[in-house]
Amino acid sequence: MGNINFKDIQPEKIRLDKLSLPDDLKKLNFAQCDELCKQIRELLIETVSNNGGHLSSNLGTVELTVAIHRVFDSPNDKIVFDVGHQAYTHKILTGRLNKFDSLRKKGGISGFCKPCESVHDPVVTGHSSTAVSSAYGIASAMKIMGSKNYAVAVVGDGALTGGITYEGMNNAGKSDVNLVVILNINEMSISKNVGSMAKYLSTLRYKDSYIKTKDVVENVLNSTPVLGKPIKNALISSKNLFKNMVLNCTLFEDMGFEYVGPINGHDIKELEAGLKAAKNKHRPVVVTVYTVKGKGYGPAEENPGEYHGIGSFEIETGNPDVVADDSFSTVFGKELVHLGKMDKRICAITAAMKYGTGLQYFAKVFPERFYDVGIAEEHAVTFCSGLSVLGMVPVFAVYSTFLQRSIDQIIHDLSIGGVHAVIGVDRAGIVGDDGETHNGIFDIPLLTSVPGIKIYSPSTYGEVKVCLNSAVYRDHGVSVIRYPRGCDKTEIPGFRVVSTYKYSGKNNDLLVVSYGRLINNVLKAKDILMRENKDFDTLKLINVYPVADIVRNIIGEYDKVLFFEESFFEGSISQKIMSEFPNVKAYAIHGFIKQQTVEEAFEEVGFLPEQIAQKIRENIDGDKT
Amino acid sequence: MGNINFKDIQPEKIRLDKLSLPDDLKKLNFAQCDELCKQIRELLIETVSNNGGHLSSNLGTVELTVAIHRVFDSPNDKIVFDVGHQAYTHKILTGRLNKFDSLRKKGGISGFCKPCESVHDPVVTGHSSTAVSSAYGIASAMKIMGSKNYAVAVVGDGALTGGITYEGMNNAGKSDVNLVVILNINEMSISKNVGSMAKYLSTLRYKDSYIKTKDVVENVLNSTPVLGKPIKNALISSKNLFKNMVLNCTLFEDMGFEYVGPINGHDIKELEAGLKAAKNKHRPVVVTVYTVKGKGYGPAEENPGEYHGIGSFEIETGNPDVVADDSFSTVFGKELVHLGKMDKRICAITAAMKYGTGLQYFAKVFPERFYDVGIAEEHAVTFCSGLSVLGMVPVFAVYSTFLQRSIDQIIHDLSIGGVHAVIGVDRAGIVGDDGETHNGIFDIPLLTSVPGIKIYSPSTYGEVKVCLNSAVYRDHGVSVIRYPRGCDKTEIPGFRVVSTYKYSGKNNDLLVVSYGRLINNVLKAKDILMRENKDFDTLKLINVYPVADIVRNIIGEYDKVLFFEESFFEGSISQKIMSEFPNVKAYAIHGFIKQQTVEEAFEEVGFLPEQIAQKIRENIDGDKT
Repeated sequence: MGNINFKDIQPEKIRLDKLSLPDDLKKLNFAQCDELCKQIRELLIETVSNNGGHLSSNLGTVELTVAIHRVFDSPNDKIVFDVGHQAYTHKILTGRLNKFDSLRKKGGISGFCKPCESVHDPVVTGHSSTAVSSAYGIASAMKIMGSKNYAVAVVGDGALTGGITYEGMNNAGKSDVNLVVILNINEMSISKNVGSMAKYLSTLRYKDSYIKTKDVVENVLNSTPVLGKPIKNALISSKNLFKNMVLNCTLFEDMGFEYVGPINGHDIKELEAGLKAAKNKHRPVVVTVYTVKGKGYGPAEENPGEYHGIGSFEIETGNPDVVADDSFSTVFGKELVHLGKMDKRICAITAAMKYGTGLQYFAKVFPERFYDVGIAEEHAVTFCSGLSVLGMVPVFAVYSTFLQRSIDQIIHDLSIGGVHAVIGVDRAGIVGDDGETHNGIFDIPLLTSVPGIKIYSPSTYGEVKVCLNSAVYRDHGVSVIRYPRGCDKTEIPGFRVVSTYKYSGKNNDLLVVSYGRLINNVLKAKDILMRENKDFDTLKLINVYPVADIVRNIIGEYDKVLFFEESFFEGSISQKIMSEFPNVKAYAIHGFIKQQTVEEAFEEVGFLPEQIAQKIRENIDGDKT
Repeated sequence: MGNINFKDIQPEKIRLDKLSLPDDLKKLNFAQCDELCKQIRELLIETVSNNGGHLSSNLGTVELTVAIHRVFDSPNDKIVFDVGHQAYTHKILTGRLNKFDSLRKKGGISGFCKPCESVHDPVVTGHSSTAVSSAYGIASAMKIMGSKNYAVAVVGDGALTGGITYEGMNNAGKSDVNLVVILNINEMSISKNVGSMAKYLSTLRYKDSYIKTKDVVENVLNSTPVLGKPIKNALISSKNLFKNMVLNCTLFEDMGFEYVGPINGHDIKELEAGLKAAKNKHRPVVVTVYTVKGKGYGPAEENPGEYHGIGSFEIETGNPDVVADDSFSTVFGKELVHLGKMDKRICAITAAMKYGTGLQYFAKVFPERFYDVGIAEEHAVTFCSGLSVLGMVPVFAVYSTFLQRSIDQIIHDLSIGGVHAVIGVDRAGIVGDDGETHNGIFDIPLLTSVPGIKIYSPSTYGEVKVCLNSAVYRDHGVSVIRYPRGCDKTEIPGFRVVSTYKYSGKNNDLLVVSYGRLINNVLKAKDILMRENKDFDTLKLINVYPVADIVRNIIGEYDKVLFFEESFFEGSISQKIMSEFPNVKAYAIHGFIKQQTVEEAFEEVGFLPEQIAQKIRENIDGDKT
């Protein structure tokens, strides 16, 4: 709106798309801000209803984000949103309003933070609990450079279950850098929040506001020779409440931070006052902000969990477009219930992904053997080792991309001691619109670095069950079952289901090897080529690692072998097989895959049936010349 | 001592080697216990002076361990020593006295905990901060099984800097299992303890003892209508002290644990009272125990840091046998100082290994750009990303085995965004007597799984410097320099030092490839074979990954290539080269390497010069048949 005097504008005349953002934000009055927040909410609901994405967390942080940009000076001050589930408003306010309808689409705005997208996104985010560490790094660099700017970390309460947040706090707390950690507490992280910290934060909520209380306490202490009755009563009635109210000793202060809070996260005036107070500390400070997830959209407020990460939906009713009946995750979860009924040693562990990994069924039937450890993948694995050494059979279900955090624990706490544990690796392979940070393309290279590990990659629901049974009852040590996001659309009932491999038999000169869902596209390519009177043999691996001798024998029978693999190539199964067989040619993934649909990503990599057919065609034709 | 009535025995007649341990421990009186502790200390000093190992931490926990075994009932109760630096007395008391002189020797007693060694070691330990998680797993299994036994985690204060400890506490704190976490606070973790938690623990030390204070406070609160003056004074004079004394609200209680402490860790009577109190809680409890590192051995008490992990030494004087003048670590550290003087962007980061990684020089010259983050390898990498995005050049020096904890952060916080950071990977390869948990044989497989990474493996001091310069000034993204433990004994001055490769030229039909220190044994093998009039060409890789085209070209010129590699084979450089060249044969490591000297380990793997010569001989002779 150029150099307009904002004072003269009625709040309802403020138009999000006419402002020069983020600069104009500081010129608005509170009523104008509220109107802006209303418009932002409408845009969030509209966009996520079309594109899918994270709704509840973003609806909860509209006022907070507006207040942050009014008090701080991005991009000179650096604002790091942990995970990025809460950064949509930030994106809208920092030059990405016009492209916001491309959210999570190929070539569009990312659902997470990306420095390549905007100078207002200082670091890549996507995995939880990194913000305090990276913001402390930024604040430390500012100090070295003599800058007076601030690093701001916006952290959800769920991220507090992750050890790296604590590691960052433990380090930053003793420093004197300009670091503001805003703790956004909505008591609703991805699954229900877990752990003692969550409980602590909920008690903290009922504390009187920081500045007011501190004054009262100081007056009391300084002026009263003997402590007054109200304080004594509080002392007797509630140890914690007293502690928080009177002494203002929060756990954060024990850890060396200044403390400001609690703040109503939907009141911009209160938010601004709190953030300004934090700014004036000129050293690390924690600000606790209490927000309502899904704020402003009825269905999301009522069921924030359902609107956390969501596909597209109908705004009027809140109905999601597609409700999946079953998926690899639910089949895995239900089979685990089946095993758990017969075998009391079976335990299920999730790292804050009870629903995502299909463990809600087990949790319901066997609450005493179900553990949601929070966003704590390191602990999850070591905890499994403890369960296992006493004879339990722990089954840890986790997304491939998040399992990257557990590699040391898998080596150190499971593999060295030969501890028996089962890991269900969900979202293995390309996941689509979440992009680089979430694709599960590194589990094969990382896990095959672990001595003695066994890896299954079933491609059908039936195989998931058989592999899980094999992992629980036949295997020793660490046994991994990896499966993709989504559904099995290809299962043909009646066939014998095995956990090893499936081979077409030797009928041709060319063998094509694959595993997981990609074998389906290889089979479609076979259909295409059969129509051209071209044929090849197929080998589907199910137990993909270690490579079985029988698999070696089959491959050894061919002059030419093509291996299609939905994994990062370096360290892949195909690379390993190539190291033994010079006649193998691999088609795998050679770098990060950007956000797009799985179909689009497959096309980019060359994994669509016609693309696979073309590669095979070249090799068959090549034979003939 | 059979069924002897211990009451009748003079303390000085108690003989460690005559007791039936751990059972007889419970029959001793306190004076007898003190005598036993004296004998244990003598044995510890004697054994470590001969074999090397961890002295200070073990001398500090003699009484604590005796008390634990008197109060708890191992192996029915499970005692988990975090890391295992403090477990020597536990080993002596649980059936390993007779073999204790084999400590850290090939085939002998491990310097860490190993279930394969004793039923009294429930889990493998070696890496820090895992004990709470695994003990909580054990306690949870006990609960499922209806067992009334206890899981006990013995955790040093250093381990509290690691996020996984916090993840475990956050989970355990809300449970009702029989878990006792004994926090052994000596304010001297490997490097000087870092972070706000260390500061917190030191204030906690001066609190009055738990049970006594609680009684006093309750009396005061219940009987006095207005709070008494002493309490008010305490309230005014020290917020924290008051809080801890009167309200007994420790950070551990905020996290849901019961609390017992502080306890004098060298007073068995006090220890027993505290541990019994903890036992009676029947839910998760933290016990803080304050000990003196090196207790009972003058030189170690005075310089606990020097006697933390130590080679053999002379008992009378405390003089270590060998003082290394220089090592790969110190050369790396000193070169970093050199760069830091010219370039103010250079920052150095260590995870509690300032001395181990040679960063003490940088810390001294540039304290404002040096960061010891504690045992927090995850945070270290993400912190680097924050430093880097503002233009700093972070250099994180870390042991190969501990870098296993940072893989997700290297992918997520560095690689995706193309953030420039340098990682010095110390102790790469076989480290010797620390065994399976500490060998650095997985960094190549794990790091090559990271897109865009560059890896150097210098084999001389000169190359370390050149590679570091190249990493800092020529590379983008993540650049890694890996080097072994110990010294470069082979450097020939005057040669041109490069960071790429060294090739003998094409003179023979056989090429032998290697990198790092192993190339030295290849060259010795060449000397052996030259005397037999047998010869081969050599290619030493320095920039080992990604494999350079020129390296491919050289390898492509040979009919036969042997690759000797001090790395786990799966995911290794040799496996990658084999996947491109069928004429390459690899000799690498195929599993965990047990404790032994590096020389012994090399022999086991077949890496001694004569063994390498024999393998080459077979291949040269094979050519002729």
